Amino acid sequence: MKVELKEGERIDELERKDYKIIQDRNRFCFGMDAVLLSGFAEVRKGDKVLDLGTGTGIIPLLLEAKTEGNHFTGLEIQEQSADMAKRSVLLNDLQDKINIINGDIKEASDIFGGAIFDIVTCNPPYMTEHHGLKNFEEPKAIARHEIKCNLEDVIRETAKVLKPGGRFYMVHRPRRLVEIIHLMHKYKIEPKRLRMVHPFEDKDANMILIEGHRGGGVMMKVEPPLIVYQSQGVFTEEILKIYGKI
Amino acid sequence: MKVELKEGERIDELERKDYKIIQDRNRFCFGMDAVLLSGFAEVRKGDKVLDLGTGTGIIPLLLEAKTEGNHFTGLEIQEQSADMAKRSVLLNDLQDKINIINGDIKEASDIFGGAIFDIVTCNPPYMTEHHGLKNFEEPKAIARHEIKCNLEDVIRETAKVLKPGGRFYMVHRPRRLVEIIHLMHKYKIEPKRLRMVHPFEDKDANMILIEGHRGGGVMMKVEPPLIVYQSQGVFTEEILKIYGKI
Repeated sequence: MKVELKEGERIDELERKDYKIIQDRNRFCFGMDAVLLSGFAEVRKGDKVLDLGTGTGIIPLLLEAKTEGNHFTGLEIQEQSADMAKRSVLLNDLQDKINIINGDIKEASDIFGGAIFDIVTCNPPYMTEHHGLKNFEEPKAIARHEIKCNLEDVIRETAKVLKPGGRFYMVHRPRRLVEIIHLMHKYKIEPKRLRMVHPFEDKDANMILIEGHRGGGVMMKVEPPLIVYQSQGVFTEEILKIYGKI
Repeated sequence: MKVELKEGERIDELERKDYKIIQDRNRFCFGMDAVLLSGFAEVRKGDKVLDLGTGTGIIPLLLEAKTEGNHFTGLEIQEQSADMAKRSVLLNDLQDKINIINGDIKEASDIFGGAIFDIVTCNPPYMTEHHGLKNFEEPKAIARHEIKCNLEDVIRETAKVLKPGGRFYMVHRPRRLVEIIHLMHKYKIEPKRLRMVHPFEDKDANMILIEGHRGGGVMMKVEPPLIVYQSQGVFTEEILKIYGKI
């Protein structure tokens, strides 16, 4: 389907099924974290998936392309981002598979009801600090800083909308790991699987990928480190695979 | 100093300063976890160090050899292990630097008093399960299973005996990471530094090394993965360095 582009918008190719995405560099373009999260999340045949804070819809698009999930919903508070996501869904003729809702993560369980998703994914704002921000309504600031919602909102609402035994997948920063584990434990989304992402094998992790199960027992598995570059500017094989390039 | 060996005991060489240790293979010999913990712990000049559950005293011996710590205390509940540790201290003429106490981790703060150590180290029993154990008093069972103390005892007593700002270093299993972080947070020993140990770079972690600060702020750093083998039977350079072989 042909869709209209607004000023500043462009169409970017995804490496999956020739899907495309509408982005605007002045707002927020998806990064490696979204791609790694879509590689980490285990969506099974028939699963109903919710992506919290979906932005321009990158995670539903990638997961629809890569998995046999039944249906994907993206929730996004910024009207303009949600609108771009909706047009990307149309652009790829995925209106039967992906639904974008313009709404607030803090109200997710009011919007969708309780215990209805098999999977929740989230690539949330990482930063707690608001100092130095000139404009709290600036789109990039909202995507990166905990302005409209914080980690506890994400995890509390996830616990409500997930079915018992449902799975939660999030990408975040290592520096927030203690809070993440603490909050997941508090809301009974038990952390089950953790993967550290290191830019190089001899560097500190700069991202973490974590899976939790609603109502699961306490038992964590730490998977092999995910190394991004094998040498300066050269991706590792695993990263190329996740990007669908090999 | 010459010391007497009892039946079943032998003297093993450590790779540091020609130190030696008395062990008995029918009881419990130190493993890689103790060596990695001694490499991970940052003992500074003048520090007073307590090792909880010291066994035959491997961690105080290695830390004394590798660091400029002022004094090292090992607490061990098993009388026979504590006795071996005491004789190893004499064997290396370290009686001015290392003190071994036969006592219970659960009573550490009664034995030593509150807020007196700069550093606490611990290589505790990893296993919660007691099923399949024939004899709860068997020395190896006590070293490996939470029979005489559990994780909460270790962390609660650590919080009491550490000075404010004091540092805690522990080696444990990844499957217990959620509990570890939860308990450290509960007793205000904030997790600050985490390192995953993987047998091979493409295998799940089988040990974790964690550092916490008494009363620290919430901010975690995840260091590069520590890989044990570069190929079957061949240690990585970092492991050889930690063992003092290169």
